[in-house]
Amino acid sequence: MTLPLRRRLPVLPLLLLAAGGMRAAERSSSSAMEELATEKEAEESHRQDSVSLLTFILLLTLTILTIWLFKHRRVRFLHETGLAMIYGLIVGVILRYGTPSTSGHDKPFSCSQEDRPFTTLLVNVSGKFFEYTLKGEISPGKIHNVEQNDMLRKVTFDPEVFFNILLPPIIFHAGYSLKKRHFFRNLGSILAYAFLGTAVSCFIIGNLMYGVVKLMKLVGQLSDKFYYTDCLLFGAIISATDPVTVLAIFNELHADVDLYALLFGESVLNDAVAIVLSSSIVAYQPTGENTHAFDAAAFFKSVGVFLGIFSGSFMMGAVTGVVTALISKFTKLHCFPLLETALFFLMSWSTFLLAEACGFTGVVAVLFCGITQAHYTYNNLSVESRSRTKQLFEVLHFLAENFIFSYMGLALFTFQKHIFSPVFIIGAFIAIFLGRAAHIYPLSFLLNLGRRHKISWNFQHMMMFSGLRGAMAFALAIRDTATYSHQMMFSTTLLIVFFTVWIVGGGTTPMLSWLNIRVGVDPDQDPPPTNDSFQVLQGDGPDSERRNRTKQESAWFFRLWYSFDHNYLKPILTHSGPPLTTTLPSWCGLIARCLTSPQVYDNQEQLREEDSDFILNDGDLTVTYGDTTITANGSSGPHTATTSLDGRRTKSSSEEALERDLGAADHEVTSRGTRLVFPLEDNA
Amino acid sequence: MTLPLRRRLPVLPLLLLAAGGMRAAERSSSSAMEELATEKEAEESHRQDSVSLLTFILLLTLTILTIWLFKHRRVRFLHETGLAMIYGLIVGVILRYGTPSTSGHDKPFSCSQEDRPFTTLLVNVSGKFFEYTLKGEISPGKIHNVEQNDMLRKVTFDPEVFFNILLPPIIFHAGYSLKKRHFFRNLGSILAYAFLGTAVSCFIIGNLMYGVVKLMKLVGQLSDKFYYTDCLLFGAIISATDPVTVLAIFNELHADVDLYALLFGESVLNDAVAIVLSSSIVAYQPTGENTHAFDAAAFFKSVGVFLGIFSGSFMMGAVTGVVTALISKFTKLHCFPLLETALFFLMSWSTFLLAEACGFTGVVAVLFCGITQAHYTYNNLSVESRSRTKQLFEVLHFLAENFIFSYMGLALFTFQKHIFSPVFIIGAFIAIFLGRAAHIYPLSFLLNLGRRHKISWNFQHMMMFSGLRGAMAFALAIRDTATYSHQMMFSTTLLIVFFTVWIVGGGTTPMLSWLNIRVGVDPDQDPPPTNDSFQVLQGDGPDSERRNRTKQESAWFFRLWYSFDHNYLKPILTHSGPPLTTTLPSWCGLIARCLTSPQVYDNQEQLREEDSDFILNDGDLTVTYGDTTITANGSSGPHTATTSLDGRRTKSSSEEALERDLGAADHEVTSRGTRLVFPLEDNA
Repeated sequence: MTLPLRRRLPVLPLLLLAAGGMRAAERSSSSAMEELATEKEAEESHRQDSVSLLTFILLLTLTILTIWLFKHRRVRFLHETGLAMIYGLIVGVILRYGTPSTSGHDKPFSCSQEDRPFTTLLVNVSGKFFEYTLKGEISPGKIHNVEQNDMLRKVTFDPEVFFNILLPPIIFHAGYSLKKRHFFRNLGSILAYAFLGTAVSCFIIGNLMYGVVKLMKLVGQLSDKFYYTDCLLFGAIISATDPVTVLAIFNELHADVDLYALLFGESVLNDAVAIVLSSSIVAYQPTGENTHAFDAAAFFKSVGVFLGIFSGSFMMGAVTGVVTALISKFTKLHCFPLLETALFFLMSWSTFLLAEACGFTGVVAVLFCGITQAHYTYNNLSVESRSRTKQLFEVLHFLAENFIFSYMGLALFTFQKHIFSPVFIIGAFIAIFLGRAAHIYPLSFLLNLGRRHKISWNFQHMMMFSGLRGAMAFALAIRDTATYSHQMMFSTTLLIVFFTVWIVGGGTTPMLSWLNIRVGVDPDQDPPPTNDSFQVLQGDGPDSERRNRTKQESAWFFRLWYSFDHNYLKPILTHSGPPLTTTLPSWCGLIARCLTSPQVYDNQEQLREEDSDFILNDGDLTVTYGDTTITANGSSGPHTATTSLDGRRTKSSSEEALERDLGAADHEVTSRGTRLVFPLEDNA
Repeated sequence: MTLPLRRRLPVLPLLLLAAGGMRAAERSSSSAMEELATEKEAEESHRQDSVSLLTFILLLTLTILTIWLFKHRRVRFLHETGLAMIYGLIVGVILRYGTPSTSGHDKPFSCSQEDRPFTTLLVNVSGKFFEYTLKGEISPGKIHNVEQNDMLRKVTFDPEVFFNILLPPIIFHAGYSLKKRHFFRNLGSILAYAFLGTAVSCFIIGNLMYGVVKLMKLVGQLSDKFYYTDCLLFGAIISATDPVTVLAIFNELHADVDLYALLFGESVLNDAVAIVLSSSIVAYQPTGENTHAFDAAAFFKSVGVFLGIFSGSFMMGAVTGVVTALISKFTKLHCFPLLETALFFLMSWSTFLLAEACGFTGVVAVLFCGITQAHYTYNNLSVESRSRTKQLFEVLHFLAENFIFSYMGLALFTFQKHIFSPVFIIGAFIAIFLGRAAHIYPLSFLLNLGRRHKISWNFQHMMMFSGLRGAMAFALAIRDTATYSHQMMFSTTLLIVFFTVWIVGGGTTPMLSWLNIRVGVDPDQDPPPTNDSFQVLQGDGPDSERRNRTKQESAWFFRLWYSFDHNYLKPILTHSGPPLTTTLPSWCGLIARCLTSPQVYDNQEQLREEDSDFILNDGDLTVTYGDTTITANGSSGPHTATTSLDGRRTKSSSEEALERDLGAADHEVTSRGTRLVFPLEDNA
């Protein structure tokens, strides 16, 4: 219920982020003078809220205009995010040193409570009752900070804003804009980098930092507690890479697509891993007296928490994605793009809320929801909704990302609890270097044992180099800045982000040319075959060689999943794929007919024409579901959809589809622009 | 600065609206048990926040799916907003009677303060300090409500959410999607309806309701104070019409365009008038003892406030619109639609903040910003950005509007301070009927004295009928529900919205046919000439008749503004219009050359092709800036841009352009589909 409030005071700058504050336009009918004073204060505070948000909008506007100038003149040494940070820094300096340090007019009032803090407080002021809500604890030494500079306080957002408002669109967009073909071709390696790599990096950085902390204690540089779990948390926070700058340049220069997929896939997934990892480390609470010794039970509990949160969030994301796909498939919403887009937006947002309501991590769920939406729902959307959803999330992502980076610049000066410890900072830089090296090189070596298309040394160096830290590390670090150790970690993270975005980001173009990495690559084209000994193993034609290669590259579980996806999920959830009547056993005939949309039988030509670069649809996979062969001119033979119910036949058909999917580019090279599918000689 | 908080408790459902709450993932290192309990509570509360938002998303999803069904089957008796309210009602009933009335676990704590409430409160709990922020006053009788049903509390949003988050996109979209041609053709009438009409309606409803209140006092139906200013405030609140349902049906059936323009224009502008009017009434505070007698000084102060806020907000909106237009004109941002869209979004949002920061009304500023953006900036945007911005605000508008309406349904049961007084409600229904009648019929009579194209009786009846109340009335009413009178006004407003949206909205189609209002009208076509005596006044050809008509219809100040806009503003702010070198005096040559973009000289063909239905550009006006005549096949003679610097010539040229603009449809009727501009016989 709404509280019967007479006076509405500015509550949170947070609120402003969404719309710009509140205004007390309510009238007082009694004891007017004193209430008038409160109202004046409220209005003044509201005005300041608006001004602080205007500051950020000005920052973003400036950033956009400068980005345009840079893009216009093809300047590549500074990315928009780096620029946003610079403008943020400048405004931060102005706010810090240019505005008078007004003592807050909100005089704090102390009164003693007995037991523990209540969420809601009723205060009796000369007969009237006022409701107060708990904002948080203040360490006794910092009480006077509450009274400090109003403007600095106004431009400081609640840390949870980053997690709950700004990260979701960024992460969803990452999942939704995944270039699926190259992502899936390198799925094994990406998963290895993201999971094993992040764990290794977190563990190594954590341990190295614990050494640094020990050293600081020895030389008397540390004035407060700094536990091993804090070090591990730092390792988790700083293991979330965000090569947004590098990827932007890759995109612009059309650098090697596999390297792009590896970097992009790793950074997308390791964000999720880092979030869950940090939550698990936080959950590591040994029982008993000695709360900072190693406790096996607590450790396994943490591992359990990790697995639980991760799989739960994954499920949430996948489920809402699937539900959206089903809705968009079985209703004819695509006649009304506005409704379709609104539904898509609401369902994607509900993933976040659903995951949070169930105690999982919304951001992680949103990532997998994005991937599922791209894989299934996108195929069911109308052409207009495809571009609408794409553009909507692109704008949200752009605004959120630049906002975070300009806030970072600002925070260097406006955040009032920085602890810069030179030893810790230098140690952290060395640790993240070693941590990244210790995960890229050994993992690449191991992966190369199994990979057909090796990750070359140059690629490994480039991946090593691209270990930038960005929005996710910042959001994780600012989440909790209550203790001394966390404040030190936050300040260090900020410096690491600055350094990597400016220096590493700026050095990408020289590094690319120095490492001889191909640029100007057609994204639909395969990398040229390498000249190592694996090249000709089985078969003798280039076609069987290609097939053999893709077979090697994709692990058995991936092949299993792919065939399941291609034969059952895609036909159930989208209008593409082979009709279920051909893939399901014959006793499921009724269900199969219900779930198979009539479009499946005649959507081949239509699908093939569509933009397959953004999201690869199975338009060119469906062509062989029967025994028909598509000729090069695009017309197909009569559809024999109800034939070939034989299991083996179907399986081999899906494998062919997979091979074509993964290696389709080889064919396409010969017919660029039209994406015709040539008749395959080995069509059983 | 951020407060060093250990524990983050859910602060506002408001926050959730933007992203879905917050989560306390912070770890405690000491006195773990008691903090663990607080953390559990915080997590529980966060979960409830997520669930409550999920409820709304579910509601919206259901609404979308049902709308689709309705549109699919061409059901017109129930609009999406009516549907959203029904679903809201159902969920409201479930929440109210289906969930256990849990006593809140946040036990209120009382402690006495001396003087007046502080904004911030520091509370000492066993040595630790916690910060609390003021939420509002609670009347002593309602203290126990604070402890009531958690779920009901969770689904109740801060009233300012509606004003600061949900209304701005709705209002901006209204301004941005204005069909300018028909709007400007009826500008005089629209302004009269919006300003005079709303004032008359407010005053009449206010006085009638004061009579009702007097009556209630007589028969003992009123248990608390209800002042004359409260009645006037009710008049202002309920004078904001929102014929969204009617307009949707008009759009679908292609009903008469002038009637559409009158209704749409009136409802858009009277929202602004009603907001400012209610603020002015609130500002009416007589000095001295007798605070509820008439005070001339206070009255004139209120009038001053009205004029000040309105013109200030108007200026703010116009200025940011103009700045955006200039930026988009003089940078080549249109090469990067993403940047352009982001800039457009940020600038439009900054209008809101700027107005709020200066003490004006953000929502009103946003309306005029939308109109300015549509009039100028839209012409400078790239084709992609045009559809992007259009679609972005369309989606935001759709979501916000349906959210408000489903919240209204919910609020009927979850709002816990309803006061339904049958006498007041019946009185209010009669009052709004009389109030609308008293402004539509007399004003239409007066307007018809001056209008060439009369507002027929049927149109007047339809306008009378279309006086629905919607989102704006609700947002104004829920803004302040602190006193008895305001609670009664809120409950009554809710019922009026329900009744008008369901009954009036559902009766639109029958009403249209009963009143013989034309449907299936081509939006670009003029209404057929009426057979009254004004038809042939001057000249004898149909062309001069048309010109004469438009001359009569547009008042002198409008013609003045139009020629100023066409000759100076459009060329300065956009790439269209006559080059400034031809319209400015010759001594301004340098400035004129700087401000005139090179595109002006060769953008005629390009502009003419574009979507002129959404926003009418001056593509077909620019054709006569020189002495050249565009022939019907679209090719123009040589551009003699530097000729005709003569003032009279230019003026007459702009008048011709105006006539063509207002009456262009007559020509176009003959060449539908291509929008060719025919050579005009009377081209001086």
